[in-house]
Amino acid sequence: MTTKMAINAKDIFRNQHRLIRFIEQSIRLCSNQSLKAAQHQREQKASADFQITAQVDAQYTSAPEPIKHDQNVGHQFRASQLSVRLAAPEQLQMKPDSDEDLGFGRLFTDHMLKIYYHRNLGGWQRPEITPLENLVMHPAAKVLHYAVELFEGMKAYRGVDGKIRIFRPDMNMNRMNLAAQRSGLPTFEGKEFVQCLSRLLSIDSEWVPHTDTASLYIRPTLIGIDPTLGVASSDSALLYTILSPVGSYFKTGSSGAVSLLADPSYVRAWPGGVGNRKMGSNYAPTINVQKEAAAKGLQQVLWLYGEEHQLTEVGTMNIFMFYVNDQGEQELITPPLSGLILPGITRDSILRMTRQWGKFKVTEGNITMPQVCELLNQGRLLELFGAGTACVVSPVNRINYLGQDLYIPTMEQEKPVHELIRETLTDIQYGKVDHPWSVVID
Amino acid sequence: MTTKMAINAKDIFRNQHRLIRFIEQSIRLCSNQSLKAAQHQREQKASADFQITAQVDAQYTSAPEPIKHDQNVGHQFRASQLSVRLAAPEQLQMKPDSDEDLGFGRLFTDHMLKIYYHRNLGGWQRPEITPLENLVMHPAAKVLHYAVELFEGMKAYRGVDGKIRIFRPDMNMNRMNLAAQRSGLPTFEGKEFVQCLSRLLSIDSEWVPHTDTASLYIRPTLIGIDPTLGVASSDSALLYTILSPVGSYFKTGSSGAVSLLADPSYVRAWPGGVGNRKMGSNYAPTINVQKEAAAKGLQQVLWLYGEEHQLTEVGTMNIFMFYVNDQGEQELITPPLSGLILPGITRDSILRMTRQWGKFKVTEGNITMPQVCELLNQGRLLELFGAGTACVVSPVNRINYLGQDLYIPTMEQEKPVHELIRETLTDIQYGKVDHPWSVVID
Repeated sequence: MTTKMAINAKDIFRNQHRLIRFIEQSIRLCSNQSLKAAQHQREQKASADFQITAQVDAQYTSAPEPIKHDQNVGHQFRASQLSVRLAAPEQLQMKPDSDEDLGFGRLFTDHMLKIYYHRNLGGWQRPEITPLENLVMHPAAKVLHYAVELFEGMKAYRGVDGKIRIFRPDMNMNRMNLAAQRSGLPTFEGKEFVQCLSRLLSIDSEWVPHTDTASLYIRPTLIGIDPTLGVASSDSALLYTILSPVGSYFKTGSSGAVSLLADPSYVRAWPGGVGNRKMGSNYAPTINVQKEAAAKGLQQVLWLYGEEHQLTEVGTMNIFMFYVNDQGEQELITPPLSGLILPGITRDSILRMTRQWGKFKVTEGNITMPQVCELLNQGRLLELFGAGTACVVSPVNRINYLGQDLYIPTMEQEKPVHELIRETLTDIQYGKVDHPWSVVID
Repeated sequence: MTTKMAINAKDIFRNQHRLIRFIEQSIRLCSNQSLKAAQHQREQKASADFQITAQVDAQYTSAPEPIKHDQNVGHQFRASQLSVRLAAPEQLQMKPDSDEDLGFGRLFTDHMLKIYYHRNLGGWQRPEITPLENLVMHPAAKVLHYAVELFEGMKAYRGVDGKIRIFRPDMNMNRMNLAAQRSGLPTFEGKEFVQCLSRLLSIDSEWVPHTDTASLYIRPTLIGIDPTLGVASSDSALLYTILSPVGSYFKTGSSGAVSLLADPSYVRAWPGGVGNRKMGSNYAPTINVQKEAAAKGLQQVLWLYGEEHQLTEVGTMNIFMFYVNDQGEQELITPPLSGLILPGITRDSILRMTRQWGKFKVTEGNITMPQVCELLNQGRLLELFGAGTACVVSPVNRINYLGQDLYIPTMEQEKPVHELIRETLTDIQYGKVDHPWSVVID
């Protein structure tokens, strides 16, 4: 069946080959030169001589649009209806020392928050705080078969004033509701949920580490629990939250930086998919790839997309590159919200913060691996780092791309931008500066 | 940053537009003509005058390669270690009448099979059959956050001789182990599992409907239950199976055929993804699209892929087209196992069966929507149908493509191939003919 279609398809295929050949050439050039370039860079010293005060405009607010509930959702829960059942004294666990190696998500606090949804009972039920306990569910629950599940990642920080703060919770609530809509799960009032969550944090407040090198990770989760095997919306759901004191998310190399596996044969997300929603289904397919990275002695996966090998995400983080652009200006660039990447709250905060600084150009645009190679060759790539709630900012010092090592001079800069960003964000989060993004828990 | 890369990307983009324009033209032509063509076809009567006996060669076997376990998996479970705890008489439920509208996956039998895996206890634990009961799991269990889950769909059939049969279980076991490997979950010995399953079926044998219009659906499920929040392999897992008496999977229109929504803005799977593994993560993103189809009065989603709008799957089924090819021959075509589609066991059986018949050409090849339009215009598209365990064979009579209705004459054929396929398969499944694909449960 020879159609115009087939001919056009052939054209594209031909171009694809040319692209791949070009990319291969770039890498050969690049891997040979990147180490040299990095050394050269060290000798030259970075030209980042700007001065930035660790502050952002306290007037700035950015509450997202309130979510529109589907009319079939039924009644909403209210924080004023919250019931609390405290753990008995003998149920309370030992709290870990602040200095202990907490790891990530291994220890949990004494209590949890639960809110059931049953369409046939009219909608959302009364919120309840209970001792941390196992969930009981039917073996046909949709969450166990069709990944009808989504979550958020937030943190509670112990401020220098002893107060507990959370960071831009309205952003998490908005993203969680968008994921619920995409998953056929019921939406809810984010503000009411944050009030319930605040109560949970008050009850387990002693679990918020008394240090600014750790925090209490908050995991809101929404799962579909209908005990029926059809692939369909779930008429019953459970919105719950558990809390876990955490240190740093992953072990870095001795340098404090991470190394990445960039293998274009694995793709995290695609147009027409759900890569921009924090749904459980985005994570299971990454586990084996992460194992492959680990087997090669690399710490995280750099997710590429498309024939041009666009950089999309790193591990479970958004990615940022600080470099000297074609006009000779310093520029911070991160991929745009094209549907392929998660709309990170740390990402959004970094963009808003650095744009307000006005000290360098800030861009949302695509970055490709051939560009990374070219910039490395020319000594113009200054820093590469991941950003997310779990890790805040995570510098990258090496990428293994199609079997070749590319050395990134992120840790060689005199006044690294990623450090400044981390300090500014953590100063806000730990209450060292006052800022509307930080919400104090009463 | 203007590179060769960017120019090539532009070329592709330009071609893409030309493709889209061509597709739009085809549809306009097509939607106007498809109804006429269908009528014309009815008048002509289909030329499918071949005679096929409903038999396949009983000598044929196709056991897949045995799975290679990762050496870290630890010890394997054995069916000989199976323990059984029967439900008390007062726990037993009323069994539904065979004539009842069973629906799909709403009722469950009295017992279930469970096999735990704990790496720190050496591997797989003893298999156990217990009364059907709720699962108890930690709220941090990986299955609830990162979709660390996979399943299979099988059926037990009550044969005309009263015996209970299952269909090609080795194929399900192989696919399930491949999905486990891709998910960072432990693999297991399929043969041992099928023996445990057979015991479960014997115990709940009265739940296998006494009719050849219903069956007992078998849902083997493997979930990761580690109570830790890192996105990583699960060191604990639960392999379990529940059973559900089922009628037909979905309601068809009055014609017995289904109508489809074909919207290229939603994509089920992508190269570099996991579309060829039966993992839970492939299903959650489809639920909202299915809702959209239902809101338009359409019964299933036809999943398209790429600029050429390739047909990949329909709902949760593989897709087949029977048509007159460019050489004037009758041909059965289904998309190839390119990684984008699930390697269906019904799909494989249909291919092997019809190839053995030798009455028409059988091809694994891509089908695009413009081709569908062209064939409809020329009156050469005879039948379109989905195939899978749940539905066996499901004829399609209408596709809503980019807002236009395309009428497919699947139900207008005098001796439809999809009917012959369905009959042959169900004759094997219900023991009307003897065949090695059908395994009798003792």
